[in-house]
Amino acid sequence: MTIREEAQRMKLVSPEMAAAPIAMRNDALERMARALEDGKEEIFAANEKDLAAAKEAGVSPAIQKRLRYDETKMRDSIAGLRELITLPDPVGKILLARELDEGLVLTRVSVPIGVIGVIFEARPDAMVQVASLCVKSGNCAILKGGKETANTNAVIFEKLKKAVLDARLPEGCLFQATAHSEIDELLACDREVDLLIPRGSNRFVRYIMDHTKIPVMGHSSGICHIYVDEKADQKMAIPVIVDAKTQYPAACNAVETVLISRKIAGAFLPVLAKALTERGVKLRGTEEVARCLAGTAPVEVMGEDDFATEYNDLVISLKLVEDVKEAVDHINRFGSHHTDSILTEDDAAAEYFLQRVDSAGVYRNCSTRFADGYRYGFGAEVGISTGKLHARGPVGLEGLVTYKYKLVGNGQIVGDYASGKKQFHHKDLKI
Amino acid sequence: MTIREEAQRMKLVSPEMAAAPIAMRNDALERMARALEDGKEEIFAANEKDLAAAKEAGVSPAIQKRLRYDETKMRDSIAGLRELITLPDPVGKILLARELDEGLVLTRVSVPIGVIGVIFEARPDAMVQVASLCVKSGNCAILKGGKETANTNAVIFEKLKKAVLDARLPEGCLFQATAHSEIDELLACDREVDLLIPRGSNRFVRYIMDHTKIPVMGHSSGICHIYVDEKADQKMAIPVIVDAKTQYPAACNAVETVLISRKIAGAFLPVLAKALTERGVKLRGTEEVARCLAGTAPVEVMGEDDFATEYNDLVISLKLVEDVKEAVDHINRFGSHHTDSILTEDDAAAEYFLQRVDSAGVYRNCSTRFADGYRYGFGAEVGISTGKLHARGPVGLEGLVTYKYKLVGNGQIVGDYASGKKQFHHKDLKI
Repeated sequence: MTIREEAQRMKLVSPEMAAAPIAMRNDALERMARALEDGKEEIFAANEKDLAAAKEAGVSPAIQKRLRYDETKMRDSIAGLRELITLPDPVGKILLARELDEGLVLTRVSVPIGVIGVIFEARPDAMVQVASLCVKSGNCAILKGGKETANTNAVIFEKLKKAVLDARLPEGCLFQATAHSEIDELLACDREVDLLIPRGSNRFVRYIMDHTKIPVMGHSSGICHIYVDEKADQKMAIPVIVDAKTQYPAACNAVETVLISRKIAGAFLPVLAKALTERGVKLRGTEEVARCLAGTAPVEVMGEDDFATEYNDLVISLKLVEDVKEAVDHINRFGSHHTDSILTEDDAAAEYFLQRVDSAGVYRNCSTRFADGYRYGFGAEVGISTGKLHARGPVGLEGLVTYKYKLVGNGQIVGDYASGKKQFHHKDLKI
Repeated sequence: MTIREEAQRMKLVSPEMAAAPIAMRNDALERMARALEDGKEEIFAANEKDLAAAKEAGVSPAIQKRLRYDETKMRDSIAGLRELITLPDPVGKILLARELDEGLVLTRVSVPIGVIGVIFEARPDAMVQVASLCVKSGNCAILKGGKETANTNAVIFEKLKKAVLDARLPEGCLFQATAHSEIDELLACDREVDLLIPRGSNRFVRYIMDHTKIPVMGHSSGICHIYVDEKADQKMAIPVIVDAKTQYPAACNAVETVLISRKIAGAFLPVLAKALTERGVKLRGTEEVARCLAGTAPVEVMGEDDFATEYNDLVISLKLVEDVKEAVDHINRFGSHHTDSILTEDDAAAEYFLQRVDSAGVYRNCSTRFADGYRYGFGAEVGISTGKLHARGPVGLEGLVTYKYKLVGNGQIVGDYASGKKQFHHKDLKI
């Protein structure tokens, strides 16, 4: 079968999947956890094969580390599954209940989105995570993992699939695409697939976004900013910036650019430069920054356009600005609408910033690294969305559901309301 | 300036527009109402010019009626504006408030989407309606009306624009595109425009959806179904079906296909056929339907693929099915995921139908024509969405807002939580 045929079949299965009771979905999650546990040796053996191939192919040690699926990662996968079981059912929530007229009751009820395509590079643990989120939320999923862990993915998928069927979820609710060419096939299934979730490098996600008409949830880049206002608590600012840059530089919520009020730059910039270079951070900045730091710390001079660069590394861009207004303009122009923070003790400046920065996360006096579903208390995370529609910022299970309107009557016709014979009374009911 | 340059400029203005207080936005709406009232003669004169041109071009009387902007339509526009003023502010609502840890407070707040492109065919009243919804929700809007009412649109836009500026909303928050070529320019602005709302024929909306990467809210077709179950109250069924087909056949929520349980077809179908033909409805159906009605009513025999046709006219498709399961399969296959209704006294069949039909509206024992923002009590309607993400079904003001996360701390860094020095306590706060 082609991917389109699989997707069409899945589309027909998806109402059954949506109707599966929560006990059955949770049972599937528990069986998935046990299947991983029981299949441990087989999974690790498959992963060893992938790692050996990667090593032979000269893949960098950093990437090799991401390909590895070991005891620790399995423990995390299983803990994630068990935690997911404890989360409330995102499906079937009554979001609105309204009597339109005597005996004519409208409800808005949360329902699964339907068919979700998940495409991820490397990281076999991502398959477990996203497949389980789809199962919990009653969605069907087409999974396509990276070829670097093809063996690991194949074994894990087989175990997850069996667990799901043993729980008596509908046959065909999970499907694994294996050939690389199937990515483009999947991207073309805009009539069958309701949502795509890509996980991988910026370039990879950008490719997905540029080559499909299916809505994509996620982000291709994370160009996060910290603006140090003239009224900032400068002592607080240093550890916040150091944390935002160095605590995990490869994360999308790590800071890439620090904007500093010109009024405090003379005192603050050298202290910041010292703190950053001590931690191995390479400084880049405008000519003005370089002049300001001359003789203190090495700065590579950069042009304006470079401010749209995401380093994902121990490199940082520095720029002086006149005020919060200029900072906001810079962020809205060069940022990726992910997460941006202002450091200030001035309420008016903070308010201006939080109101006008057009990003999923707008912070005051804390590190951008807090942008994360677990830290926000969502329990499980699908990803972080920089799109503005449907879901924005860290997305939990609620990003995998939509709603439908149910209207139940006893023979009501619109003609009676159009003619004035009857009137709507729109009485909201207790939920 | 090109449309892209206008859109880029608007993108920079949008944070200012988003920050405009509700009093200012409501003042703009009141000024818009008064500007229409005061500019009546000028607007009607422009409309007469458009109508004369349409007549000369041989435009059909039905379309000419839609182009007309007269006292009645203006009264509706003005009433709509005044009603919009009374609706609560959709912006700035706190949707979630959570203390992540001592002194680190997360809120999710509703914010305008940003820049909205509105493209509509004919109907000058649509410009007033959508522009006012964008103003109420703090969005910037690029408006492109049909060339058939170019004169009317130009005069109305000029008045609306002046009203908005008089209310001191930011210059550049509304823009009118006038050349037809600008539609394609607008469709290419996927970095500047956050959402497109098309209003017009199926073909027009389908064109928009197929030629842009910007998210589109709306629907290209409305293929709505009524399934008459074997346990239907047959007396109730007749007026419901007649209403759904004839009360306003051109509406997207009018029924196109009636599916009838084979078990009751012998008794029910002739009665239904009579009721429909009496009201001028032309019957189409499968061979089985034609046989069943032989000698009673004329039926044009149709093939399976024809069930995906939206008539928008006094024509109806008829088909017999074995049970609710077959009905649901037919609807999910041929429908447009708009609104579908089951007529039955059987709770189990109804439950099966409401659960498994994958449409924005799933109804029991009432007409599909109820699918409408006003009837649902939303006060104002942006349109009806058959997409599953962001907004589904009739969309009110809340479809024009998204949210952002605000996080306010006093120097918190992620390193402290990663090292275990601090723990999140995730305490939900009263909203």
